[in-house]
Amino acid sequence: MNYTKILRILGKIMILEGVLMCAPLIVTFCYKETLINKLAFIIPILILFTFGFILKSLKSKRNNLYQKEGFALVGLVWIIMTLFGALPFVINGDIPNYIDALFETMSGFTTTGSSIINDVTKLSHSSLFWRSFTHWIGGMGILVFILIFIPESDDGSSLHLLKAESPGPQVGKIVSKMKVTTRILYSIYLGMTILEIIILLFTKPIPGYQGDHLFFSMLTAFGCAGTGGFGFIPGSMELFSPATQYIISIFLILFGINFSLYYLLLIGKFKEVFKSEELKTYFLIIFIAISTICISLVTRSAELLQVYTKEEVFRHSLFQVSSIMTTTGFSSTDFNLWPMVAQLVLIILMFIGGMAGSTAGGLKLSRIIICIKGFGINIRKLINPRYVPKTKFEGKSLDDTIINDVFSYITLFIFIFIATLFILSCDPVNGSIIEVTSSSSSYTVEHGFLTNFSATLATICNIGPGLEAVGPYSSFAHYSYFSKSILTFVMLIGRLEVLPILILFSKKTWKKA
Amino acid sequence: MNYTKILRILGKIMILEGVLMCAPLIVTFCYKETLINKLAFIIPILILFTFGFILKSLKSKRNNLYQKEGFALVGLVWIIMTLFGALPFVINGDIPNYIDALFETMSGFTTTGSSIINDVTKLSHSSLFWRSFTHWIGGMGILVFILIFIPESDDGSSLHLLKAESPGPQVGKIVSKMKVTTRILYSIYLGMTILEIIILLFTKPIPGYQGDHLFFSMLTAFGCAGTGGFGFIPGSMELFSPATQYIISIFLILFGINFSLYYLLLIGKFKEVFKSEELKTYFLIIFIAISTICISLVTRSAELLQVYTKEEVFRHSLFQVSSIMTTTGFSSTDFNLWPMVAQLVLIILMFIGGMAGSTAGGLKLSRIIICIKGFGINIRKLINPRYVPKTKFEGKSLDDTIINDVFSYITLFIFIFIATLFILSCDPVNGSIIEVTSSSSSYTVEHGFLTNFSATLATICNIGPGLEAVGPYSSFAHYSYFSKSILTFVMLIGRLEVLPILILFSKKTWKKA
Repeated sequence: MNYTKILRILGKIMILEGVLMCAPLIVTFCYKETLINKLAFIIPILILFTFGFILKSLKSKRNNLYQKEGFALVGLVWIIMTLFGALPFVINGDIPNYIDALFETMSGFTTTGSSIINDVTKLSHSSLFWRSFTHWIGGMGILVFILIFIPESDDGSSLHLLKAESPGPQVGKIVSKMKVTTRILYSIYLGMTILEIIILLFTKPIPGYQGDHLFFSMLTAFGCAGTGGFGFIPGSMELFSPATQYIISIFLILFGINFSLYYLLLIGKFKEVFKSEELKTYFLIIFIAISTICISLVTRSAELLQVYTKEEVFRHSLFQVSSIMTTTGFSSTDFNLWPMVAQLVLIILMFIGGMAGSTAGGLKLSRIIICIKGFGINIRKLINPRYVPKTKFEGKSLDDTIINDVFSYITLFIFIFIATLFILSCDPVNGSIIEVTSSSSSYTVEHGFLTNFSATLATICNIGPGLEAVGPYSSFAHYSYFSKSILTFVMLIGRLEVLPILILFSKKTWKKA
Repeated sequence: MNYTKILRILGKIMILEGVLMCAPLIVTFCYKETLINKLAFIIPILILFTFGFILKSLKSKRNNLYQKEGFALVGLVWIIMTLFGALPFVINGDIPNYIDALFETMSGFTTTGSSIINDVTKLSHSSLFWRSFTHWIGGMGILVFILIFIPESDDGSSLHLLKAESPGPQVGKIVSKMKVTTRILYSIYLGMTILEIIILLFTKPIPGYQGDHLFFSMLTAFGCAGTGGFGFIPGSMELFSPATQYIISIFLILFGINFSLYYLLLIGKFKEVFKSEELKTYFLIIFIAISTICISLVTRSAELLQVYTKEEVFRHSLFQVSSIMTTTGFSSTDFNLWPMVAQLVLIILMFIGGMAGSTAGGLKLSRIIICIKGFGINIRKLINPRYVPKTKFEGKSLDDTIINDVFSYITLFIFIFIATLFILSCDPVNGSIIEVTSSSSSYTVEHGFLTNFSATLATICNIGPGLEAVGPYSSFAHYSYFSKSILTFVMLIGRLEVLPILILFSKKTWKKA
């Protein structure tokens, strides 16, 4: 194990986090917040800088990192980022309990958006900003960021790190000149975020809204770009004007697309973009999901607590589908009250997630496509044992290794899912009645199976809200601290796609070679 | 496609079913039932014999069957058996609707035990007998039965059929002299059933029970042997004496064990039996599950509607774990009212199922073990790309093909599961309130997510009852006919482990070669 090299990189990460924390510190000055709110960021920044520079000055004998070291490092980086990122909330008293703060921060960095805060109006502007900013930081990966913007000897080890941190299977990705292309991808990410902020500045966000328009636009764009989904106004995005909701929906769909495709667009390879099977499937699924939900909302309208106009049916379907499929978790209405079939469509979208290489979570669309093609191959092999598969995905022939990796990943995912569900079921909160209040209605739900099921799904797929007692108008606050810690961990597992965490906590990784 | 050969075998199957239907016909005479009840069996028997002998007399050019023909045949056989097996219920009026009758019969043959009958006391003795007898017939496989007892040219095609019909992966199975050993396995099955009937005859079944003791014992044993689980007394097995419940639990655990192990015991290979990893894991899981449920019932006793003594806590835990793990579905108490964690233990057991090569359903324990070993191999390969796996299962080294088949099967299973869940969620019954009455309590439940989730699980894993509105004290009656048809089909998919059905309905199978 190359400990010194790992510590050196951790040092750089800590300095980076210190720099990033200056953004919310500036917010405290803009809004003339109290001294404690300023100290809440100044103290962690000083700690981060001190430790960061000490670690960075270490000298390592060996400069390269092996694959397993890379994976373990990625796991460590995310944990360290969260441990320090949670400090401001505890210091300024917005989230007094450190476990709650860790949950909220991990939820931010992993772009989950699950919250333990019942009333966001009680948070300071700087806390709200930092919360949403963590989404933006986590969206494209933390290590990727440091590796491409801070000079580091390029010896192939950065490739391991990128592999460990970027989500989805590695089919059809641009791997040559990794560093250059990743830098371009990050620039696209930044550019699209700024574009969204500007467009939002030109629309009236909320009828009669008096708050700061820039602040509002930035927080919305951070959530969209990272496909995070922390709400910063009571009732998430219910009160937003229809125009704003449409803009957000469109940007969400755009951020769920593989960023390599934007790169191809930029360099003029339009044909390749339109040939992408994953992209076609992505739009097909969005279309089917919206249609199904629209039909169910119209045919079952009598059973609903809310009354929707035709335009609202379409708008809310579009908004929820784009928000859930990209695993963002913003809500324009209380989908907890939707008919069962509409809810199940959302649950299935949660499993699927966005495209590989986007900021979205979930299993990733390309895995689902490879999986279905794999079924076809396996069945044909059974009918005709001498069958030689010629199946392709994105123009490249699918070999057994890729298919089996996907099957193995999905199975492992299901196992972790069931284990988490089991732990949540042991929570004493089960069976209790939770009150839910939205702007249009108030009702009670039981904390039951669907709550735990959707809470597990919402965290492992990095979505945010679930259904029933963890629906869009309630929070994860009522879970015990033990369950919250487990869910914090599960968010990380989901974001890093299991393996870095397994390797980080494997004994073999830390044995002397 | 060798149509004539397939039709010939179907003819034999129809004759076999006609012969088997003579058993309930005898019951109609024993209990001096009405003419219509007798005709309910006589008419189908005559139809089966007529068609059976016509088809059997066909002459085929080619005598052997290809693998895909074998798979398709197995699917066909089960469908034909069910189509005719459902007739008696419709003719005697016990289940007037044919779709309901198909559901009930498929549930019987596939040893599921899900029922659409709310009040079993309204059924005639002959109907009750036929219902439970279908469990026994389906338990070890229908085609297996005909192939080993009726002379048929042994040309290797029977091997395909056995492969298609016997559940679980084919690791560690006795494959040499397939026909002889299968005949021995069937004899063990018959012997154990008779043993259970005899033991039950020596115990008082229900305090103050006036009914026919032999009838009672036979129906119980049929359900246990096939791990079916149709109840034939209101409230399933709640009223049974503790002694009877213990006997049933033990036999259930025995019927969930791989029958090859009994064969090894018979020929004196004790060492091999005790070396079986699957057997050790089986008992370990049973032990863990019982302990977890006992602890949850004791610690959460205040929340329960029922009051249990210490002995009852142990007995019901043992009974439910053995009943659910072997995917039987008998109930000794209303586990619908158990705490969430105990219910989730049952749900996990439903997924796992019994051992491969037993009469139980579910994913099969050996698949779970192979799967977990597969994770280990994959992770080690990632840490060290040059790693050569030396993992073994049941003494044989696990090659990639076996592991990948298991991953592929589990993933396909999850896909079918989600698709079924989606269809059930479209049912208009969702959201309605269902009244549940057991001997000790009466309450209402909403037909919600857990109902659909557990109904899907209960049918695809061939268990029987689910939770919430399809719990042990309610039935599947309130689902729409469309949903019932889908569930009927899902039971078959679960029993035949997906592939025969996929091949049967694949266009390629029926194309001229």
